Amino acid sequence: MDFDLREGAAILERTPGVLRSLLAGLPDSWTRRNEGPQTWSAFDVVGHLIDGEETDWIPRARLILSRGENRRFQPFDRFAHLAAAKEEPTLSDRLERFASLRRRNLDELAGMRIGPAELRLTGEHPDFGTVTLSQLLATWVAHDLGHLAQVSRVMAKQYRQAVGPWIAFLPVLTDRPRD
Amino acid sequence: MDFDLREGAAILERTPGVLRSLLAGLPDSWTRRNEGPQTWSAFDVVGHLIDGEETDWIPRARLILSRGENRRFQPFDRFAHLAAAKEEPTLSDRLERFASLRRRNLDELAGMRIGPAELRLTGEHPDFGTVTLSQLLATWVAHDLGHLAQVSRVMAKQYRQAVGPWIAFLPVLTDRPRD
Repeated sequence: MDFDLREGAAILERTPGVLRSLLAGLPDSWTRRNEGPQTWSAFDVVGHLIDGEETDWIPRARLILSRGENRRFQPFDRFAHLAAAKEEPTLSDRLERFASLRRRNLDELAGMRIGPAELRLTGEHPDFGTVTLSQLLATWVAHDLGHLAQVSRVMAKQYRQAVGPWIAFLPVLTDRPRD
Repeated sequence: MDFDLREGAAILERTPGVLRSLLAGLPDSWTRRNEGPQTWSAFDVVGHLIDGEETDWIPRARLILSRGENRRFQPFDRFAHLAAAKEEPTLSDRLERFASLRRRNLDELAGMRIGPAELRLTGEHPDFGTVTLSQLLATWVAHDLGHLAQVSRVMAKQYRQAVGPWIAFLPVLTDRPRD
């Protein structure tokens, strides 16, 4: 499936509502537990998604569209939210903040008037070198979906013992931890 | 995390809304594609969840709570929805049907007045032998979450090519296909 701005935005628009439907009002026993040392809870993942809205996707798109000389991206800090967690926001605060940042960013994306020519413009990724705007925006979408999969998996794993022998029919419970 | 009826039901109540938030109104390019031969699309997964509501979770709970002599479960047909797909319902039909069956089943679950003694009652699984009501209900919950993870993963994989070099940072795109 090639990247298509309208199809991609259809996912980006939905993610805040999906997370709210899944997580809002759940007890901490579901949302604050992870899948082992150095792994993330649902609460952590929402913090990470907020970081992406603030420092990754749209700032990088802006840089590419600037057509400037230096279009090298700032490295993205995948662990910034763990420091932010010390400020002790609630999950509900994070869900609302993510939704509002995403709304603002999708408005900005729409205002960028991106067409086929813009999708081919490039920036410099610190690890990968030259990447296109199309690849950046497709990654934004796949990143959302990957973290939705992660949140569901991490929560499922809380019942690894509770399901007894059914663990044999539930591959999600024995998946390796990852983000 | 031990199984707790209230905590478990909190997930079961949310699943139809989560799927609706994620899938309703999306183009078929997202919802009808799978992750390779013999794998399921989002549309297929919702059909499978409907089958579970109709023939698996609550019928098995009823059998356990009957305290009858024969408490052997009917095998669950994990592929029934693929035959049903020939009737060509829309995804929207399936989402609504799943939501309504789930609502009805949660009402029935609440009416069962399940306490700690009931959670220890047992049935006979065709593969596993003796299983408890607690294990059955925990599996219902983990099964929902596993399939939410699957739907997100299958959709993410549609952008496996489109993300270019970022595939290296998106483990969900190279996960093995499974349900």
